[in-house]
Amino acid sequence: MGVMTPNPTGEQPKQPIPGVTHLIAVGSGKGGVGKTTVAVNLAVALAGLGHKVGLLDADIYGPNVPLMMGISDMPEVHEERIKPLEQFGVRLMSMGFLNPGDRPVIWRGPMLHNVIQQFIRNVEWGELDYLIIDLPPGTGDVQLSLIQTTPLTGAIVVTTPSDVSLEDARKAVHMFRQVRVEVLGIIENMSYLVCPHCGQRVDVFSTGGGKRTAEEMEVYFLGELPLDPEVRAGGDSGRPIAIQVGKGDAYVQLAKDTIARVAQVGDPKGPIMKIED
Amino acid sequence: MGVMTPNPTGEQPKQPIPGVTHLIAVGSGKGGVGKTTVAVNLAVALAGLGHKVGLLDADIYGPNVPLMMGISDMPEVHEERIKPLEQFGVRLMSMGFLNPGDRPVIWRGPMLHNVIQQFIRNVEWGELDYLIIDLPPGTGDVQLSLIQTTPLTGAIVVTTPSDVSLEDARKAVHMFRQVRVEVLGIIENMSYLVCPHCGQRVDVFSTGGGKRTAEEMEVYFLGELPLDPEVRAGGDSGRPIAIQVGKGDAYVQLAKDTIARVAQVGDPKGPIMKIED
Repeated sequence: MGVMTPNPTGEQPKQPIPGVTHLIAVGSGKGGVGKTTVAVNLAVALAGLGHKVGLLDADIYGPNVPLMMGISDMPEVHEERIKPLEQFGVRLMSMGFLNPGDRPVIWRGPMLHNVIQQFIRNVEWGELDYLIIDLPPGTGDVQLSLIQTTPLTGAIVVTTPSDVSLEDARKAVHMFRQVRVEVLGIIENMSYLVCPHCGQRVDVFSTGGGKRTAEEMEVYFLGELPLDPEVRAGGDSGRPIAIQVGKGDAYVQLAKDTIARVAQVGDPKGPIMKIED
Repeated sequence: MGVMTPNPTGEQPKQPIPGVTHLIAVGSGKGGVGKTTVAVNLAVALAGLGHKVGLLDADIYGPNVPLMMGISDMPEVHEERIKPLEQFGVRLMSMGFLNPGDRPVIWRGPMLHNVIQQFIRNVEWGELDYLIIDLPPGTGDVQLSLIQTTPLTGAIVVTTPSDVSLEDARKAVHMFRQVRVEVLGIIENMSYLVCPHCGQRVDVFSTGGGKRTAEEMEVYFLGELPLDPEVRAGGDSGRPIAIQVGKGDAYVQLAKDTIARVAQVGDPKGPIMKIED
């Protein structure tokens, strides 16, 4: 940290966040694919493995992290810096803490950009091994501004196996590549349901498309996560499946795979590799 | 049409769209709840009942209507006006026709607003009984600009029964009320899955929350739609379930209920009722 890496692409160097080693964005082309569920459970699983972890809910309009993490206090402010909340060993910041209840936040783009930058840079994250950023769904200008100005180690793209979701996931991969953010991998969420009555597998949203898309786009495939009513219930009740004894194995595996991918990708602060123009 | 209604709220009157009788927005607080699936099948079902129907895909970043309707041609332009495509008796416009493939559209808010206005006002919709507008998911500034400047008859809010989705659906209802757009009703999509192996019901995303939320918010409840792999497959294959013989009953019922609600709500062009400040 402190030493700027050379910047052959001519872009503005991205200021590192003091104390934060790796920033990982979790994105999706389409909403409702379980992006926040993945971000929350990945953060909790990384903390469970002994790492110092923060989770920034950057979905200003639909911040679901407070509900899923079961916490909704107002953060304290000391000398113009916001103190993150902490739950299940993860430091948290979300618009949902500042605007609880049902009223929508109706802000224009530039204001949104400012508040996310404040969440990244004016929050007392302290020493973190991993800061997970739960992006708003989609590939719009808010997402683009955020990933352009943040020294991301890499990004994870969440999709379901449905063609409609995959169509949007490919857009998300292209968005990250356009601004030279390494895609750590694609996760296929809601891959299949195991019927709780008969135990048979139901391919609710089709099957196999995540792996196929990852191969086609030459992106690492981080695996399948089943459509499990218990995962949804864990989110709705504020007790993420990853903290529940004997139920979080898939997320522990995902956390380990993510750590391995981060090690492959290396130093987060320079332009890592030029994939395309 | 033509005569402006009195405007006691001091807002700009909304210019009607020549030839279009009713504009209905389909929105959701959260993505991935089946908003586009509902919009597509509602449009097709209304056309099947003999009405003249248009469908505008206002989701610029993730336009899934072309895939779901099985059409992706480039629309013709005559004298600076765009001719909509037509499929299954529905006139269609989507950013996906102009930007096919996987590249994301990366535009800022004002540009987005312009393109949606062009889609509403510079497309040769012709005579339509119903123009269905598939909004982008969420409650951001693009959605707000659109519903503030469009003479909507009303809006339909799609949710799943999960608490996370309902949390965002309430925000969407508030958004419509803030700008005095009548909420025609809430639809609970993905209500339950009937296991194709054993025939038993699985409450994948919980159950009953749509009806409960509609009651709490004093919004009409437009009913439950099951999580049916055939509906998803219909969308992925470009053959909406509502055109498939013997399978579209739920959407025919939804179309009839929507028509009834539109009749209750009455004239679309004036400020309809003041629900709250």
